[in-house]
Formats: sequence, C-alpha cells, structure tokens
Amino acid sequence: MAEVEEVEVEFKQDIVWDLVTIYDRKIEEVLINKIKEKYPQHKYIGEEETAKSGHTAKLTDSPTWIIDPIDGTANFVRRMPLTAISVGLTINQVQVLGIIYDPYKKELFTAIKGKGAYLNGKRISTSGCKVIEKSVMSYEISIARRNDYYYNLYMFRMKHLIRRIQGFRSLGTAVLGLCYVACGRLDAYQCDGLYPWDAAAGTLIVIEAGGHVVDSAGKEFDLMDPNFLASASKPLSDEYMELERRADEEQLKFAREKIGFSP
Amino acid sequence: MAEVEEVEVEFKQDIVWDLVTIYDRKIEEVLINKIKEKYPQHKYIGEEETAKSGHTAKLTDSPTWIIDPIDGTANFVRRMPLTAISVGLTINQVQVLGIIYDPYKKELFTAIKGKGAYLNGKRISTSGCKVIEKSVMSYEISIARRNDYYYNLYMFRMKHLIRRIQGFRSLGTAVLGLCYVACGRLDAYQCDGLYPWDAAAGTLIVIEAGGHVVDSAGKEFDLMDPNFLASASKPLSDEYMELERRADEEQLKFAREKIGFSP
Repeated sequence: MAEVEEVEVEFKQDIVWDLVTIYDRKIEEVLINKIKEKYPQHKYIGEEETAKSGHTAKLTDSPTWIIDPIDGTANFVRRMPLTAISVGLTINQVQVLGIIYDPYKKELFTAIKGKGAYLNGKRISTSGCKVIEKSVMSYEISIARRNDYYYNLYMFRMKHLIRRIQGFRSLGTAVLGLCYVACGRLDAYQCDGLYPWDAAAGTLIVIEAGGHVVDSAGKEFDLMDPNFLASASKPLSDEYMELERRADEEQLKFAREKIGFSP
Repeated sequence: MAEVEEVEVEFKQDIVWDLVTIYDRKIEEVLINKIKEKYPQHKYIGEEETAKSGHTAKLTDSPTWIIDPIDGTANFVRRMPLTAISVGLTINQVQVLGIIYDPYKKELFTAIKGKGAYLNGKRISTSGCKVIEKSVMSYEISIARRNDYYYNLYMFRMKHLIRRIQGFRSLGTAVLGLCYVACGRLDAYQCDGLYPWDAAAGTLIVIEAGGHVVDSAGKEFDLMDPNFLASASKPLSDEYMELERRADEEQLKFAREKIGFSP
C-alpha cells in the first residue's frame, strides 16, 4: 500500500523514508531470486517491479507470484507494528497460494487453495459473524484523500456504515486486515482502490478460513483491480453490500446534482 | 473503553465476552490490592469500581490511582493485539505518574511528571511533526455510533480532517493511541466522549515525551471529562484545533438549521 498514502516527510522519519524504497526493493529481490532458483519459468507481479516499469503486468495463465514486500508502508516508516510481507501465487489466473508474514508479532498466515488457512501452522477460521450490528470492520478511509471520487465514495459509505456496525477500525494495512478477518479478530475488511499485491494472498486466506470475498461495488471480484469486501460469512457480506449499494446510489445522485458528474 | 462500543456478541466471541468482566475485575483487584498494601490511605478511580457504584468518583487532592484494567475491550474480546492496562496517579489533582503495559508486544510505557517518558526503560519522544498535512492521526470514529450528538461531531470533523491529514487510523484503544503519539508512531490521537481512566496515564506520557494535550473542543483540558487531542507538537495541535473549530461551527449551524437543536 505504498501508494495509498503518498507520504512525504521531513521530520523524524526522514532517514527511515529514504530507507523504505531500499527495504522494499531488497525484500522483493530476495523473494524473487529465491523463487527463481527453483522455478526459473515463473512470472512475477510486484509493487517495486511495477513502479519501475510504470504499469502493472497483465496476469497470464503462467504461474505468477504476486508480491508486496512491505504492506502498510506508512506504518512501517513510523515503526507502527502493523505491517507485513505478502506473497500470493496464481496458476491459470486462479489464486492457489497465500503467505503473509508479520515480523513484529512473528505471525505467519498461510493458505493453499482447498486446504484451509493457518496461523503459525494452526488452522484458523473467521468469527462466523452473520449480523452487521455485531461486526467490527476495518476500512482504509485514508484513501478518501486521493481525489473527489474516492472522497465521496468513502464518506457516503462511512455515513451509512458507522450507524450500523459495532466497531470501526482503520489499521493502515490491507494485508493484515485480511488476515485478521481470517482469524476472527475482525469481522470485515474493506478497501477500494488497491493493487493486486494487496489482495493476492490475503483474499485466499480469508476464503480458506471460511470467509467470503466480493467486489465492493457488486461487480465480479477482479484480482487485478481489487475493490473488495472480505467478511466472516456470506450473510454478513450480503448485509454490507445492501447497505453500501444504498450509499453508492446516494453518492451518484449527489454527484449528478451537485457537481454534474457521475463517476 | 469498555463503554465505547456496547458490545453484545453471540457468535464465536461469546465465551470470551463472559470472561471479559471477570478479567476486568480481576486485573483491577490485583492492582488495587497491591497498591493498598503499600499505601492504605490512597484512593482509586476505576472502570469496574465506577460500574459498580454507578457514577465516577470525584477527584480529590488525595493521592488517587486511576485505573483501566483492559483498554480496548472490543479488541481484547477478538484477540486483536491492540489492548493494554493503564494506571495513572494524581496528587493534589495533578497527574504525576503514568504506567501503560501492552502484554501482546511486551511494551511498558512510563512517565513521571517532569522526568520524561520511557518505553521499556528507554527515553522516548514524539515525532516532532508540526504540519497537519504530514500527520497520521488516530480517531475513534466508532463513538459516532453512540447518539446523534457524537455522530454529527465525528462526521463533520472527519469531513474536514480527512482531506488535510496524511493518514487516518482507528485502533480501538485510547491508551495505546496515546502511547503511540508519545513514541512517534502516530502524530496525533483524538477522542471525544471518553473516561478519566482512558486518559490519566497516557496524556501524561504524551506530555513527558514532548507532546501537547488540549481539550478537543477548545476548553480547558479536564481529566474527569476527557475530550482530548494529543499531538506531537504545539504547532500541530494548533493546526488541528483551527480545522476542528471550523468543523464544529459547521456542525452547530447544521444542527440548528436541520434539527432545530444545537448540542
């Protein structure tokens, strides 16, 4: 999520920020080199590699490793212990493997398609929560800063969500947000406007933990353009989606009336 | 912050929630008994003790220990590793000691008035951030659920804040939010509608780390009715306050016009 908050700093974090890109590149390099040794034909989609080429590579049927070397960059730079490394694998464009490691808490979340989800080798499952009023969600409202479209999208949804849900969190990390849904620490995680490497491992881990993942705008979930709601159960997901469609309709009406523009 | 989100659960967390009150009481009991052994004349203000008597005791000049046995209860019940124990001490109604312990990360934050703030014995200081555009804040927007007053207060402020700040977090713990400002992981922490035990230790730790604490409505900070903004520096605090006064004015205007009621 380095792009989520285009962070510039000049105070204490200065030196750390200079190092972030170096760390990002270094971790991605180590991971890719290790995988290349074993699987020289495999492909890669990563944050750093995308930054270099200027565009996200197209997902093909080849085995493709989708890597986020540091998720929660703005946390990392402040030494906030909410950051992780995410590695996903697709084969024939299907997510088959997800690995997420939180070095602060030494927590390794893993999933293989059809084989369940694990935290440090122990099987995990979602909270099973089915009712929106009993759910705690994490939503990265910082993205509302990006432009008018995201500002309206997030604020209209917030307006509807905040009075229904039990608790609201913003953790600044999509990858751990997804892991926390998988192990029942959160009941839902949503983010709009993310990247494949934010979702590739975590969404599989949620599904393998018995959770549900949908496109948050009600379209088909697209790993290469991920706007997702990951939740503890299908009934909970349906309740969120019903509420958010109402928010989105209101937002479109507002956009048409007030700014003569519907995103 | 047990009252912040009046949590009822029936799914996985059921058993844990039954245990929460027991843990809360047990921790408070252990702390108070240990202190009583050494200081039999001292007084106490605590969440559990307040719950029992139905009202918060008045703060007197006597040495008074202000205790939150489990801050971030909704996190605790979900095993979300964002929860801590908070112990503050006032003498002559002045905050003189703050101790906060995060058992997940084994982090002990401490401060004695005039002697600086420490994390596991090592001196800490705030980020020093002076500019709102470069600040990451945590704000417990879950409290907007409480009633119309808090809903409007939080939503109008969010509307103004979200386009100025660099990043937004909601961690669900006032006590750790304050510690994270003290050690530079966050640049600001704000919460309106809290309790003395949420603020007693943490606000002292922020001040002793070089930070700034003000009443978030611009009044004099009152430990017994804490609505506070804790930030990395006085200039940053001033920028937040200017923005929030604009939000509050807009909210009052809205309340008068739309609902014929100004809170």
